[in-house]
Amino acid sequence: MKIAVLPGDGIGTEIVAEAVKVLKVLDLPFEMDEAKVGGAAYEAHGHPLPESTLALAKSADAILFGAVGDWKYDTLDRPLRPEQAILGLRKHLGLFANFRPALCYEQLTHASSLKPELVAGLDILIIRELTGDIYFGQPRGRRTAVDGHFPGAEEAFDTMRYSRPEIERIAHVAFQAARKRNKKVTSVDKANVLETFQFWKDVVTEVHKDYPDVALEHMYVDNAAMQLVRAPKKFDVVVTGNMFGDILSDEAAMLTGSIGMLPSASLNAENRGLYEPSHGSAPDIAGQGIANPLATILSAAMMLRFSLQQPEAADRIESAVRAVLAAGYRTVDIWSEGTQKVGTREMGDAVVAAI
Amino acid sequence: MKIAVLPGDGIGTEIVAEAVKVLKVLDLPFEMDEAKVGGAAYEAHGHPLPESTLALAKSADAILFGAVGDWKYDTLDRPLRPEQAILGLRKHLGLFANFRPALCYEQLTHASSLKPELVAGLDILIIRELTGDIYFGQPRGRRTAVDGHFPGAEEAFDTMRYSRPEIERIAHVAFQAARKRNKKVTSVDKANVLETFQFWKDVVTEVHKDYPDVALEHMYVDNAAMQLVRAPKKFDVVVTGNMFGDILSDEAAMLTGSIGMLPSASLNAENRGLYEPSHGSAPDIAGQGIANPLATILSAAMMLRFSLQQPEAADRIESAVRAVLAAGYRTVDIWSEGTQKVGTREMGDAVVAAI
Ligand SMILES: CC(C)[C@H](C(=O)O)[C@@H](O)C(=O)O
Ligand SMILES: CC(C)[C@H](C(=O)O)[C@@H](O)C(=O)O
Repeated sequence: MKIAVLPGDGIGTEIVAEAVKVLKVLDLPFEMDEAKVGGAAYEAHGHPLPESTLALAKSADAILFGAVGDWKYDTLDRPLRPEQAILGLRKHLGLFANFRPALCYEQLTHASSLKPELVAGLDILIIRELTGDIYFGQPRGRRTAVDGHFPGAEEAFDTMRYSRPEIERIAHVAFQAARKRNKKVTSVDKANVLETFQFWKDVVTEVHKDYPDVALEHMYVDNAAMQLVRAPKKFDVVVTGNMFGDILSDEAAMLTGSIGMLPSASLNAENRGLYEPSHGSAPDIAGQGIANPLATILSAAMMLRFSLQQPEAADRIESAVRAVLAAGYRTVDIWSEGTQKVGTREMGDAVVAAI
Repeated sequence: MKIAVLPGDGIGTEIVAEAVKVLKVLDLPFEMDEAKVGGAAYEAHGHPLPESTLALAKSADAILFGAVGDWKYDTLDRPLRPEQAILGLRKHLGLFANFRPALCYEQLTHASSLKPELVAGLDILIIRELTGDIYFGQPRGRRTAVDGHFPGAEEAFDTMRYSRPEIERIAHVAFQAARKRNKKVTSVDKANVLETFQFWKDVVTEVHKDYPDVALEHMYVDNAAMQLVRAPKKFDVVVTGNMFGDILSDEAAMLTGSIGMLPSASLNAENRGLYEPSHGSAPDIAGQGIANPLATILSAAMMLRFSLQQPEAADRIESAVRAVLAAGYRTVDIWSEGTQKVGTREMGDAVVAAI
């Protein structure tokens, strides 16, 4: 088994190093190969997703990804910007199913913006379609408007689209995930305005016939953004498109108050996947040794479970993280009075020790 | 001066009746004409926005709107559903500038999901573009995919688009609004993925040159959804497109904890406008006399200020609402221990008395 390790930019290198340390101590039979991605790859090879990195990712059973991006690349042409690497990996590897758990750890409930009773025990799984929608739809670009409010004016445009099989496969993923949880799926759409999401709603409703044991509710995206704030614990599995999923998964992550703790997985049809923390590259704190490596370490656990068929090893990592939290270790982002502030490396060491 | 009164469905008739009562007591020189809209209009005339209603709306200086929609219309063909009325009014009247204040009233801070210190004194103004974007872009529909992941499959699609003058005019509205407030605009986009919103960002940046006294920041929509939860008070004016604005304005409204208090205005280039509460038609509580009429009453105040050049009358209504809250009157949605629970009509009467 082969893991492609792509640390990326900003705090990426620091947090991935800790996850690699944790993986190594498990002493499992896999090889790890590292490559540059994002801004780091642009600096070294002139492209955020060089051929060699893409080839390594394609040949691997799983990818452990850090984060990409830095303000200093904001002025590059769009195809050269760091985030194109992550979009390219999703597209070229067909990583259509993004799992974004929003989990509130008991010891960190107070860190949430929300009142503790609203988030204590929160455990939502957002399943975001990741290779379709307006992210990749063609045509897109700039042109002269021929109709609309200002015919003749310069305009920019994008195409939102979903095909039946794209919706079917992500719906199956959601219903199957719900079966292992609380058997409830909320499908988020904007069927009252968009043709794409009326179709989405229709197809999800059809797929639901195969899962009579799972409850399905439909919710408009604007209402979902509200209900996540009002009563987040009412959700179990949320399934939605790429664009709405981008917004709602980040909103849900922030509700927990500890985005530094949240892993993610992006899987393709063969269960090969890319695993990365839900947070970004945080260039403002890069190199200071203070970033929280737990989201990345927990992403490695997801990788062991979903792509590498090592559920016991995944359990060991997750238990170790819980033990470390229980013992009071905290990086600065989750620190509070009465707990022990540690750096990135010490946190990784603590997890290794707990394993 | 003429006001078109369109109560609509659900609690719409009850809450609009209270706003009309408040307007009448001001004894100002305008006439009010009522018409059906939404499901009520469909029942009476077979269409959610009958010609006669549209004609009245077009002839008026301002529209006082209640709410539309009920689950019982969910199975109608899309062009006959209640929400088409509101989309039609926006389009036919050119109501491109939607003002959605998210305000946290001192006495209602506790009603928020967020910790009181995060929302006390919250005062955000979300300015949503309302006649463009993927809401109205053509082409849209269903077809057979010719490319993408599943060529040959059935697919649905929509077109996102913005032209330069559309972005320019809403940007001017936002910068001018910010000048009267805390002189800060956050423009929300997804320039890292969408051509439309790279263009949005470019044009807003250009318009900003006319407003050197106002600070402009750009934020990705996923990050904005997070920052609204993390630190909502960091925002002053937020300007964004129709789709992102739909989501973020509802999220922000829910943060305040009292969506039953929040008015909105949708203006066209001549400052004629449609005024409606931020909340919906709430069919589940319709006819019970318990709905909160304050958002509609405050929408009438916005109408007096923006479209009818009666700022003093607007002030009188807003002061009366504050007085009524201070006196402890609460409808059930904002009620808490130690305050006096009142119904829709009693709340309207209390505002009238305070005026
Ligand atoms: C970096 C960006 C292109 C990306 C997205 O929008 O998908 C990010 O926000 C994410 O959610 O992984
Ligand atoms: C009813 C619906 C079409 C509408 C919208 O999406 O604009 C509503 O959600 C709103 O925000 O006014």
